[in-house]
Amino acid sequence: MEDREISRAVIGRLPRYYRYLGELLDEGVERISSSDLSKKMRVTASQIRQDLNNFGGFGQQGYGYNVKYLYTEIGKILGLDRTHNIIIIGAGNLGQALANYVGFEKSGFILKGLFDVNPRLEGVTIRGIPIRRMDELKAFIRHNDIEIAVLTIPKSKAEEVAGVLVEGGIQGIWNFAHTDLVLPDNVIVESVHLSDSLLELSYNISSSEKDTENN
Amino acid sequence: MEDREISRAVIGRLPRYYRYLGELLDEGVERISSSDLSKKMRVTASQIRQDLNNFGGFGQQGYGYNVKYLYTEIGKILGLDRTHNIIIIGAGNLGQALANYVGFEKSGFILKGLFDVNPRLEGVTIRGIPIRRMDELKAFIRHNDIEIAVLTIPKSKAEEVAGVLVEGGIQGIWNFAHTDLVLPDNVIVESVHLSDSLLELSYNISSSEKDTENN
Repeated sequence: MEDREISRAVIGRLPRYYRYLGELLDEGVERISSSDLSKKMRVTASQIRQDLNNFGGFGQQGYGYNVKYLYTEIGKILGLDRTHNIIIIGAGNLGQALANYVGFEKSGFILKGLFDVNPRLEGVTIRGIPIRRMDELKAFIRHNDIEIAVLTIPKSKAEEVAGVLVEGGIQGIWNFAHTDLVLPDNVIVESVHLSDSLLELSYNISSSEKDTENN
Repeated sequence: MEDREISRAVIGRLPRYYRYLGELLDEGVERISSSDLSKKMRVTASQIRQDLNNFGGFGQQGYGYNVKYLYTEIGKILGLDRTHNIIIIGAGNLGQALANYVGFEKSGFILKGLFDVNPRLEGVTIRGIPIRRMDELKAFIRHNDIEIAVLTIPKSKAEEVAGVLVEGGIQGIWNFAHTDLVLPDNVIVESVHLSDSLLELSYNISSSEKDTENN
């Protein structure tokens, strides 16, 4: 299988497939036709087939998809067939919200530590996990096999902290700081720019108001 | 100007242009060549020109872009030339994190109210704004000219609450519930599926590990 040829757009749709298949599993659905899956997900059946063909298909003519099998296989593609140790840097509201969200744990993302610059937070625990000092960060990554760091700190500190994470040997950064991190190619960065998303909403509202005025 | 022809991809890039131009403004930069802007943003100069041509251009041959002018114009396109009243439904960690983020206020998104099902939160204030009961929601939207609702509640309640928002006359929903809302066409939904983003990161890490093993 040649992963590198798969487009970002396809990869971007995989988590959504995984989510819908998980819901079907929860509802006790064992198999689903590509046309029913397509209605549920509101994408065309041909798009689903094309997307899944990138990974070898999974469907059977006249049968459709076996929900559990497809869920498991997409899970493997997404790297969910093993656990990932994560840490959160920045124990403010957003960091704490993410730390408290148990859904990540269910998907195999195991929170091993929290870090914050605020000395008053040192030793405070969230779900039993203590908040640590930033100067422990690099060694902690090395000694605890940490793969992913979640960055929920202001953008002014983001580049500097990301540098420490890279030195510690981090593989991926889930970046909520409002800046695009420039890092070595072997470190994967996935950014969630919340403001960008709000501005897109604002654009779409303004643009739909203009449409209404013009009609 | 015909907004409806503009692709989602272009619209998706506008907030990023706006962010970089804002940083340039903060640094006191008055004008920038398209090639310098392109280096800074790590997209091609031709992409920038193409994107901005959708809205009438803004650049001058041999001069480049006037930073403040371009920032202001993109702001207008994004609907930031006026304020937007917003409410947050769900005053848990994530709701509080968003309520405490003053950056939204600076961009003109004015938080008018918070709502939560938990009766113990009633009357608690965040930045001086009280948390209200859900049964006040519909009337509050009508009487306070609320345009955008931020939904930070579990997915099991999301459809039901979204229905109330629509009845109240909401224009846009910034949806953090882990489900795709199906709503009337005149209500704009922008979803932030945090788990989807984490799974994309996980995919990219797994895929880059496979590449390394294969080399």
